[in-house]
Amino acid sequence: LADPLIDHAEGQLFLNEAFKIIVEEVLRKGTDAEEKVCEWREPESLALLLDLQLRDTGESQDRLLQRVRDVAKYSIKTSHPHFFNQQFGGVDYHSLAGRFLTEALNTNLFTYEVAPVFVLMETEVLKALRQLVGWTDGDGIFCPGGSTSNMYAMNLARYKLFPEVKTKGLWALPRLAIFSSPGSHYSVQKGASYLGFGTDSVILVKVDDGGRMIPEDLDAKIELAKSQGFVPLLVSCTSGTTVLGSFDPLDCIADVCDKHQLWMHVDAAWGGSVLFSKQHRHLMKGVERAKSVSWNPHKMLLAGLQCSAFLLQDTTNLLKRCNCANASYLFQQDKFYDVNLDIGDKSVQCSRKVDCLKLWLMWKAVGSTGLEHRVDKAFLHVRYLLEQMKKRDGFQLVSTVAPVIKERMMKEGTMMVGYQPLGDLGNFFRVTVFSPHICHKDMDFFLDEIERLGKCL
Amino acid sequence: LADPLIDHAEGQLFLNEAFKIIVEEVLRKGTDAEEKVCEWREPESLALLLDLQLRDTGESQDRLLQRVRDVAKYSIKTSHPHFFNQQFGGVDYHSLAGRFLTEALNTNLFTYEVAPVFVLMETEVLKALRQLVGWTDGDGIFCPGGSTSNMYAMNLARYKLFPEVKTKGLWALPRLAIFSSPGSHYSVQKGASYLGFGTDSVILVKVDDGGRMIPEDLDAKIELAKSQGFVPLLVSCTSGTTVLGSFDPLDCIADVCDKHQLWMHVDAAWGGSVLFSKQHRHLMKGVERAKSVSWNPHKMLLAGLQCSAFLLQDTTNLLKRCNCANASYLFQQDKFYDVNLDIGDKSVQCSRKVDCLKLWLMWKAVGSTGLEHRVDKAFLHVRYLLEQMKKRDGFQLVSTVAPVIKERMMKEGTMMVGYQPLGDLGNFFRVTVFSPHICHKDMDFFLDEIERLGKCL
Ligand SMILES: Cc1ncc(COP(=O)(O)O)c(C=O)c1O
Ligand SMILES: Cc1ncc(COP(=O)(O)O)c(C=O)c1O
Repeated sequence: LADPLIDHAEGQLFLNEAFKIIVEEVLRKGTDAEEKVCEWREPESLALLLDLQLRDTGESQDRLLQRVRDVAKYSIKTSHPHFFNQQFGGVDYHSLAGRFLTEALNTNLFTYEVAPVFVLMETEVLKALRQLVGWTDGDGIFCPGGSTSNMYAMNLARYKLFPEVKTKGLWALPRLAIFSSPGSHYSVQKGASYLGFGTDSVILVKVDDGGRMIPEDLDAKIELAKSQGFVPLLVSCTSGTTVLGSFDPLDCIADVCDKHQLWMHVDAAWGGSVLFSKQHRHLMKGVERAKSVSWNPHKMLLAGLQCSAFLLQDTTNLLKRCNCANASYLFQQDKFYDVNLDIGDKSVQCSRKVDCLKLWLMWKAVGSTGLEHRVDKAFLHVRYLLEQMKKRDGFQLVSTVAPVIKERMMKEGTMMVGYQPLGDLGNFFRVTVFSPHICHKDMDFFLDEIERLGKCL
Repeated sequence: LADPLIDHAEGQLFLNEAFKIIVEEVLRKGTDAEEKVCEWREPESLALLLDLQLRDTGESQDRLLQRVRDVAKYSIKTSHPHFFNQQFGGVDYHSLAGRFLTEALNTNLFTYEVAPVFVLMETEVLKALRQLVGWTDGDGIFCPGGSTSNMYAMNLARYKLFPEVKTKGLWALPRLAIFSSPGSHYSVQKGASYLGFGTDSVILVKVDDGGRMIPEDLDAKIELAKSQGFVPLLVSCTSGTTVLGSFDPLDCIADVCDKHQLWMHVDAAWGGSVLFSKQHRHLMKGVERAKSVSWNPHKMLLAGLQCSAFLLQDTTNLLKRCNCANASYLFQQDKFYDVNLDIGDKSVQCSRKVDCLKLWLMWKAVGSTGLEHRVDKAFLHVRYLLEQMKKRDGFQLVSTVAPVIKERMMKEGTMMVGYQPLGDLGNFFRVTVFSPHICHKDMDFFLDEIERLGKCL
């Protein structure tokens, strides 16, 4: 009992073997267009295959390595060129190296003392992201996802207007209203209920044919809400809506926010990366007038889950004032270094994972220009796909049979793409083609495959 | 432009080199008692050394590998046997392999479709944890930290009592009260303000000499709150308080909760792991009477950040009813498999990192018995340290000079331990010795080192 329980050499040997399997099964095979995207199994048989049950006794190293292989085999290959299913396909190897390093270092972003490198790095990365937004100064924090980032905005907006909410709660405040569009992400609804506003506080503003919020209707809805006794609090605009990829007209919305003194938040979780591109950043014109922005490098930039930045124009330490609890076991004031570097109390979390290193290393690797290139290429992909689709017949017909096509593709494992109903139009396929792995061949494959799977339906 | 932007072979080569550096610098040297725990630099010089700035152009692979080395060098070695600083020291190599695999697979826990293995695995791990709590059935979810888990409890408790809160917000509800002890984690306060209750809603119950909540005072405080017009909602008990490691008397608190019909939540973020131990699980006697439990395997079990389970006794789908938004782009109802497997809508997040694999693989590796052994050993460490400390003079004196001793140890890099003020008693060192790497030698080192650093003060 006087000796340690863990043998480092043995552990490192295991890790080494596991690493080789990961590279071969997940990264090499998993990105090979000739291999399957998924190895579909019905839940019952997959549970049996994996033997998930946890028991009293441990297992041999060989058995455990086989488990690593099994998990890899039956998991979805999200870096596969035929994975068009979600906003996080693809792999960036520098980011991945950053993630491995993060995991091995296993530290926590609360204080300079315990995360000297990452406190400085997070600060620097946030600054660089803010510069792209157009702010020379400001604040921010990495959150475990864009949903949380959006909630931070709601929480800050109400604290800014009514600081007493922190101690007295919403009961001490008038009824507040939040404005958003029907195409906005569901986290606005989730946030409204989680933070105690209730979803009835979310007022939906009309959109135009392109799914963009109509500023005149926003203005009218604000007036209406006021007349109903609400205090209008915040507008959550979207830059890149989840389903249609629409960009709300930020400049015009900013005018309305100015007029009524509302907090303008921009949910750019999906679309924020256009700010890297000289050619496409006009889509977010006016973003610099926002008070806060959510931006997920884990989506279009391939930084890997989770990586979501919440950016703030504020320079008055609002974030910390709103969220701090001043715990004396972490945030002692009699430290031997500048305690402003102890950024943990800005968060509503306590432990907070390091999410900046992977983005930083990737950014260092390819530079802003490399990231710009990726964004531009994603737009070219979209154009190519549209052109090719127009050349083919029958793609409108797909909608009624989408679930069946989807079942067929999953069971064959040839590709993955999401479908979704759109109003009266029925189901359609939402194909994401932003990944820098994807080339024309893959998009042609997508179209051929939809045709093939849709045959005889 | 017809070709992909990312070269997989080149990327995998880089990853390979980075992996070697990680193993050597973070895992081999970083766990060697002869090496430093930290390589202290003042913030300004560290920022210079690291050259953090992000630029337009990318860098060479060699330069990037040097960056990996630098990040490793100047980061804290949290797996070092002389890292006594926080509740997450140490490394488990099976868990780490699970984390690497998670990062490489980079998927998202919303649907069976995109995470077949992990949906089943998370369900199984939660079941195993619930069994240790003493529940044969129930629900749960992994959260990005114990703070979030505690907030889930508050959110659910109010929804259960007043389902209209989801749509109408707190304005439609009477003022609610939450009960906790002064030793409870600050996330109870943060949660109260984030979720809109306000910190005034948190009523602190008196504790005994051992820092344990006094049930009679809880009863009295509940009566008092009622008489002041509050509706008592929830008691947040703590199993293993952050600073003192106290365990609230759950059985007696459960009686009070029964009497007043309150939601009993147990924050076992730190102490939950005693449930593995036949010898020590009595500390949580009565936990099975709770409605919910937070438990962080990323602390005492070394699962790695982030790994926090929120466990629920409920079998009525309360979690999903409370948090769901039914987004049609993710949670289509016309799928070809059982949509109950699409667990994502239970979460207030959208993207949710896979946090179960690392725990599962570690648990498979050593079995429940191995984990029990670790917990028992941690208690032996504490006893050993106490005995040794009693044999030495002058340890009480440390309190006034803790900040100076801390500065000296950080700058020399020989070890890390946290200090914190305790009421009128001044500062004391909070040493965590649960890591299975630690042996008598390391604890002796700790005591010697405190003496050495405290000399001439
Ligand atoms: C526009 C938009 N906002 C927010 C989110 C939520 O981000 P996360 O999944 O990181 O919570 C998404 C994710 O799909 C999104 O598309
Ligand atoms: C008792 C207790 N509860 C909750 C937490 C918060 O957990 P996390 O840091 O994962 O948010 C801690 C962390 O120190 C804790 O000690």
